[in-house]
Amino acid sequence: MSAAKKQKHSTILYSYWRSSCSWRVRIALALKEIPYEYVAIHLLTDGGIQHSDDYKLKNPSRELPTLEIDGNRLAQSIPIIEYLEETKTSGARLLSDDSMERATARRIAEMIASNIQPVQNLRVLQYLMAKYDDPAEKTKEKLAWGHHWIEQGFVALEQVLATTAGTYCVGDQVSLADLCLVPQVYNARRFKVDMSQFPIITKIDATLSALPAFVAAHPSAQPDAQ
Amino acid sequence: MSAAKKQKHSTILYSYWRSSCSWRVRIALALKEIPYEYVAIHLLTDGGIQHSDDYKLKNPSRELPTLEIDGNRLAQSIPIIEYLEETKTSGARLLSDDSMERATARRIAEMIASNIQPVQNLRVLQYLMAKYDDPAEKTKEKLAWGHHWIEQGFVALEQVLATTAGTYCVGDQVSLADLCLVPQVYNARRFKVDMSQFPIITKIDATLSALPAFVAAHPSAQPDAQ
Repeated sequence: MSAAKKQKHSTILYSYWRSSCSWRVRIALALKEIPYEYVAIHLLTDGGIQHSDDYKLKNPSRELPTLEIDGNRLAQSIPIIEYLEETKTSGARLLSDDSMERATARRIAEMIASNIQPVQNLRVLQYLMAKYDDPAEKTKEKLAWGHHWIEQGFVALEQVLATTAGTYCVGDQVSLADLCLVPQVYNARRFKVDMSQFPIITKIDATLSALPAFVAAHPSAQPDAQ
Repeated sequence: MSAAKKQKHSTILYSYWRSSCSWRVRIALALKEIPYEYVAIHLLTDGGIQHSDDYKLKNPSRELPTLEIDGNRLAQSIPIIEYLEETKTSGARLLSDDSMERATARRIAEMIASNIQPVQNLRVLQYLMAKYDDPAEKTKEKLAWGHHWIEQGFVALEQVLATTAGTYCVGDQVSLADLCLVPQVYNARRFKVDMSQFPIITKIDATLSALPAFVAAHPSAQPDAQ
């Protein structure tokens, strides 16, 4: 990452240190050993830089991440990771050659990326909180909302992982599913979910978190970390 | 579909006529010309059949669709469609051979499947509505919530389609993106979104809706339609 910070690359990731979706792509880029320039888009400063005219032109969804690579501009974390997997032969594979294992990895990824994360993300929380005036009430409601959806999602996820996991989410190879798991567990802790209910998730997360690519992609290792 | 209703097949789709995620997979199965048995899971009867012990064993997320095929049980609509695309050579292709076109189709699909639909879906609406007693207030809040997220999502989607669409979402070939678009437009109309703001989405939806596979997959054509 220190090289990525100093050098100019043709590959640019628009990211925010605590954005789960950016984090998934940071892990993928690290596993694929692709150097890149990190451009921080602060999601809270000045009402959120993702809403600026300049960034909206890059990504009309006003969300992170956006990846510029190979002269193309890509958005949405899972499609970006699928693109990297299809086009880059460097580093690790993120999906198995077996179609059923691929379907399982994608299923677990979507259980997080479409069932859990979108419901507890910043724009939904901001919209929900707008109706409360009292800061203490805002915080309480926000915590209750995020806690509910993450916990409910993890109940299902733990059951699925009981049938699919080895060292990682799908057997003993790191896959797309693992790239989604680690940022979601970080969010679970922020929303005070009792992780002792989910021993399989907890164990896989701990194992993944020690891998160098996951260490490099962690929010605390990003140039815009606070 | 009439053959599918009468015959027993090894391929079984657990579906609900108005479930957007089931609908995406019904279109894929129709485009791939794969016959299947339709098993209706009523999302509202008796508090929702998706919460029954029997169904939870099939799909711990307690959501539709679930697809049994090739001796496997799959869940999550986009991973199911990716599996069909990878393993079935019959019927239409759902993704281009070009990696950037694939990334664009997947991006549009995820703009719907992870940014819009999960926030306006049944479980979120039911959770939100639980705090209101007055049925009129429930209906008003539900409509306002769904309307907000679909409209906001379609503003971004219309801008992206302006740069990617031909006859369909990505150029002139039907793709994964189109399978997600049509059910979301149906939901937009249910939530009273003014579609005249979105001429590109409206036109593509109309063109797609006339194709035989889309006619066959429409909620009104399902055995459990009400």
